[in-house]
Amino acid sequence: MRNNQKQLKLSFLGGVGEVGKNMMCLEYGEDMIIIDSGVAFPSDDMPGIDLVIPDFNYVIRNKNRIKAVIITHGHEDHIGSLPYLMQEINAPVYASRLTAALIDNKLREHKKKFKTNVVKNKTVVKAGCFSIEFVKVTHSISGSMAIAVTTPVGVWFHTGDFKMDFTPIDGEPMDLVRLAEISKKGVLMLTADSTNAERPGFSMSEKKVGATLDGLFAQNKQKRIIIATFASNVHRIQQILDLCEKYGRRCVFTGRSMQNVCETASKIGELRYNRENITDVNSLNKYDDDKICILCTGSQGEPNSALSRMANDEFPKIEITNNDYVIFSASAIPGNEKEISEVINLLYKKGASVIYESLAEVHVSGHAYQEELKIIHSIIKPKFFVPCHGEFRHLRAHANIAIDLGMHERNIVIPDLGDQIAITPNSIKKIGQVPAGIKLIDGLDISSANGIVQRDRMQLATEGLCVVVLTISSKKFVLTSKPDIVTKGFIYANDNANIIEEAKDLVINSIINADFKSNDWNAIKDMIRKVLGNLFFKALKRKPIIIPIIVPTV
Amino acid sequence: MRNNQKQLKLSFLGGVGEVGKNMMCLEYGEDMIIIDSGVAFPSDDMPGIDLVIPDFNYVIRNKNRIKAVIITHGHEDHIGSLPYLMQEINAPVYASRLTAALIDNKLREHKKKFKTNVVKNKTVVKAGCFSIEFVKVTHSISGSMAIAVTTPVGVWFHTGDFKMDFTPIDGEPMDLVRLAEISKKGVLMLTADSTNAERPGFSMSEKKVGATLDGLFAQNKQKRIIIATFASNVHRIQQILDLCEKYGRRCVFTGRSMQNVCETASKIGELRYNRENITDVNSLNKYDDDKICILCTGSQGEPNSALSRMANDEFPKIEITNNDYVIFSASAIPGNEKEISEVINLLYKKGASVIYESLAEVHVSGHAYQEELKIIHSIIKPKFFVPCHGEFRHLRAHANIAIDLGMHERNIVIPDLGDQIAITPNSIKKIGQVPAGIKLIDGLDISSANGIVQRDRMQLATEGLCVVVLTISSKKFVLTSKPDIVTKGFIYANDNANIIEEAKDLVINSIINADFKSNDWNAIKDMIRKVLGNLFFKALKRKPIIIPIIVPTV
Repeated sequence: MRNNQKQLKLSFLGGVGEVGKNMMCLEYGEDMIIIDSGVAFPSDDMPGIDLVIPDFNYVIRNKNRIKAVIITHGHEDHIGSLPYLMQEINAPVYASRLTAALIDNKLREHKKKFKTNVVKNKTVVKAGCFSIEFVKVTHSISGSMAIAVTTPVGVWFHTGDFKMDFTPIDGEPMDLVRLAEISKKGVLMLTADSTNAERPGFSMSEKKVGATLDGLFAQNKQKRIIIATFASNVHRIQQILDLCEKYGRRCVFTGRSMQNVCETASKIGELRYNRENITDVNSLNKYDDDKICILCTGSQGEPNSALSRMANDEFPKIEITNNDYVIFSASAIPGNEKEISEVINLLYKKGASVIYESLAEVHVSGHAYQEELKIIHSIIKPKFFVPCHGEFRHLRAHANIAIDLGMHERNIVIPDLGDQIAITPNSIKKIGQVPAGIKLIDGLDISSANGIVQRDRMQLATEGLCVVVLTISSKKFVLTSKPDIVTKGFIYANDNANIIEEAKDLVINSIINADFKSNDWNAIKDMIRKVLGNLFFKALKRKPIIIPIIVPTV
Repeated sequence: MRNNQKQLKLSFLGGVGEVGKNMMCLEYGEDMIIIDSGVAFPSDDMPGIDLVIPDFNYVIRNKNRIKAVIITHGHEDHIGSLPYLMQEINAPVYASRLTAALIDNKLREHKKKFKTNVVKNKTVVKAGCFSIEFVKVTHSISGSMAIAVTTPVGVWFHTGDFKMDFTPIDGEPMDLVRLAEISKKGVLMLTADSTNAERPGFSMSEKKVGATLDGLFAQNKQKRIIIATFASNVHRIQQILDLCEKYGRRCVFTGRSMQNVCETASKIGELRYNRENITDVNSLNKYDDDKICILCTGSQGEPNSALSRMANDEFPKIEITNNDYVIFSASAIPGNEKEISEVINLLYKKGASVIYESLAEVHVSGHAYQEELKIIHSIIKPKFFVPCHGEFRHLRAHANIAIDLGMHERNIVIPDLGDQIAITPNSIKKIGQVPAGIKLIDGLDISSANGIVQRDRMQLATEGLCVVVLTISSKKFVLTSKPDIVTKGFIYANDNANIIEEAKDLVINSIINADFKSNDWNAIKDMIRKVLGNLFFKALKRKPIIIPIIVPTV
């Protein structure tokens, strides 16, 4: 027991694919802190699901031990599940000013309320036995923070999502000197963003995108310019607003999240622009094409986003013409390629010019490439290393970088979702698993969507459905009328009328042969499922969900 | 009418997204020829669908006019629907030797029979008023052909899928001199592969892949090598077999299509290897890792492919270990990125080393890049140009290349699926649409899957299902028992018991209030759908499929 008290435990909770992104949890003795509380995005095998949040069971079980919730930055995969988490626990939340403002937005949507404590670069927060220092990093959203956590065992440095932009738009690059000071005191363990660990070289500075966009504005003075980008990329938006000012264009924010984020960021001074240069969709007809720039959501081809609706003629008051110059200032998040391509095709069909990453440098990644990761490792000089934020392939690639830099493989642990790692001054190892599944959220409901619903939906989607209605005398245990069969999604009356008749006869004969003597409706239902399941599989190679319904009659 | 007789008509049938890939149809007067008969692959919104074939209605309606079916090469998107087509029409089929052998394989699977006429480079075939010359091109499968069709109106040149590989594995590069001869006689219209029209420069030669693989074989002499590639890429496979011979490794073909294609290609001499150097899965345990190379399917992460099954521990007799060196000798077809990444993660987790396109040059594209397209345009010098084989964005990019080379926009037509284009010696224009939808094939059945089934399935998948069983007296038009409600995929008894009760009460009240006076069961069903639809949408924001079932009682 005493030994157990002396170790630091780090757990990786929730998420889909990427380890440590949505939630991590650090413990020592009785004290616990949570790092981030995000959402994942549903994959193709989760039809109808809107959001995926971490399973909070481990956290809820330990709710009285939680001393702080630390949010590294304001992206959805780091803040999206916070309203759900804060329903369950009671602990102070810490985040940078922009992150806090985005959290407040989210709370208003959920009609919930709690206060986020705003931190700055070098702010130190005490939480039980932990002392947490925030360190500003550069990333694709302002207000991103790394953390240096001093624990009774040693210092843990966690980069959060980051890149090394030495010419950031806000003029405040990552504080390498502070990192060196932290390093000098000795860092026991580093956890770091592995998203781009497979990419050699350096990521480009955000400023590069501004330069490319400037050229495109200059070359297309007669056209209306439409730019799709991530609403949260405040620095990208700042650069676009500056270009609008420079080239005499009014800017129109479209898409709900674009409007929300811009308003929020402007309120706290993270986004600076002249209000006169902004107009809205309703006033568009007052301006010529060459005096307008539309800034919108939809860079991932999302079906309900502003840009998709424009491409599909479904956006009120904005019609795409051959005088439109559309820029996708973003790259495809893996899995979205087809949707994006579909929107590009539609825009081209309407005669618009379309520019995307493969044609011009209109986007840079917010995550460190290999050489940037080497800098972090070389400055921080940790004893132990745990790559995180990435799929296994990325974590493995990041581990290889650490090994190239001289670290021994035994000092590296590659975590999986749900893993709990124990760290002492002289050792690091996986010690087990904590509950770390996911909760699916559909419609308004938090708890309704779970594994069974999803399996049902997938089976309904791929195999279809067969409802069998039986009227059975509850006295004589015989059918009182011919069974009724309704199918959806696997056979068609026209094509297979006879298989339905065959199915009905099979049901009748099975019930006669089974010779039931009691009202054991469940046994009858099981039998129906079995005989019809066999029939449909043999005849059609399909496994529909079969729903027998028994209507008892006298 | 007379005028009508003098024009050439080209129609673009079937397919998903890519225009002209699965089937084209050329007509003049009473004569008609078909070019290719392929399949498309189902998209994410077609759950449970195995294959997508062109809608053959236009072809069937004109079956007596069809003089020939020309197959350009043996990829599934060009031959996959041929067995279905040949059930409907009767015309000679022409293809190169390897293509014909692959078609024969396919016929055996379908238990069907017809003879394919084998053509070679420069073979000329007469079909009604058309004279078709085959011209060998290089592509990612051997035996690929362009065609030069002499018609009463002029010459149509169609590249088919192609690239310009001047150092191909079979030593026979594209015959540029023959192209020049054809050009000299005057080409009225060019249709050409647009797949890579957005990519600047040249595609690399297939030989480059061999050189990269040679290096990887040399660097990994102790390991077992596993290579996933497209079964149809006979030249890639030839290079791998040559490397096996060079490095003293036995080769194992795994995956059904890999075994089929290799056997077929070897039989007709397209693939040459020493039988002694081939072994099978059952003999694997006789050889050390460093004496084996496993050649398998699964480069696209397909769930049932050999490599996916190995990664998931589901492939008998092959277990992935940390002594495995796995090479993805392919690039991701858009839409497959996530599946591929999942397989890579699983392989890494088992300790294998994994190499893919972003890490080494282990794949080259089979489609011409911009500079190669410029060569074709510059040699063929067509009067009219119709870009095909690509999504609209690619066709637009290809049209822009033609314009850069001096062609006038009015001489270019960008086709869409189903378009029919009329060409005379002096004009080209779209003249209408032909039936050109798609047919979905699921399970064993050709005709069963259509739009309604698919809509049902998508709604079942995303929204779930509610079955309502009502017992209604067919004399008194009243409910004789409480309604029974069964739901799937959208609500859970535990979470929402009260909504089911609410639904039941609503049904009871609606029927009482409606005061039916006749056995108009359909009116009752419509009403139930409406009231429950409203209830579920208001309460849960869901739109399940609602299936009312009425059981008449006395």
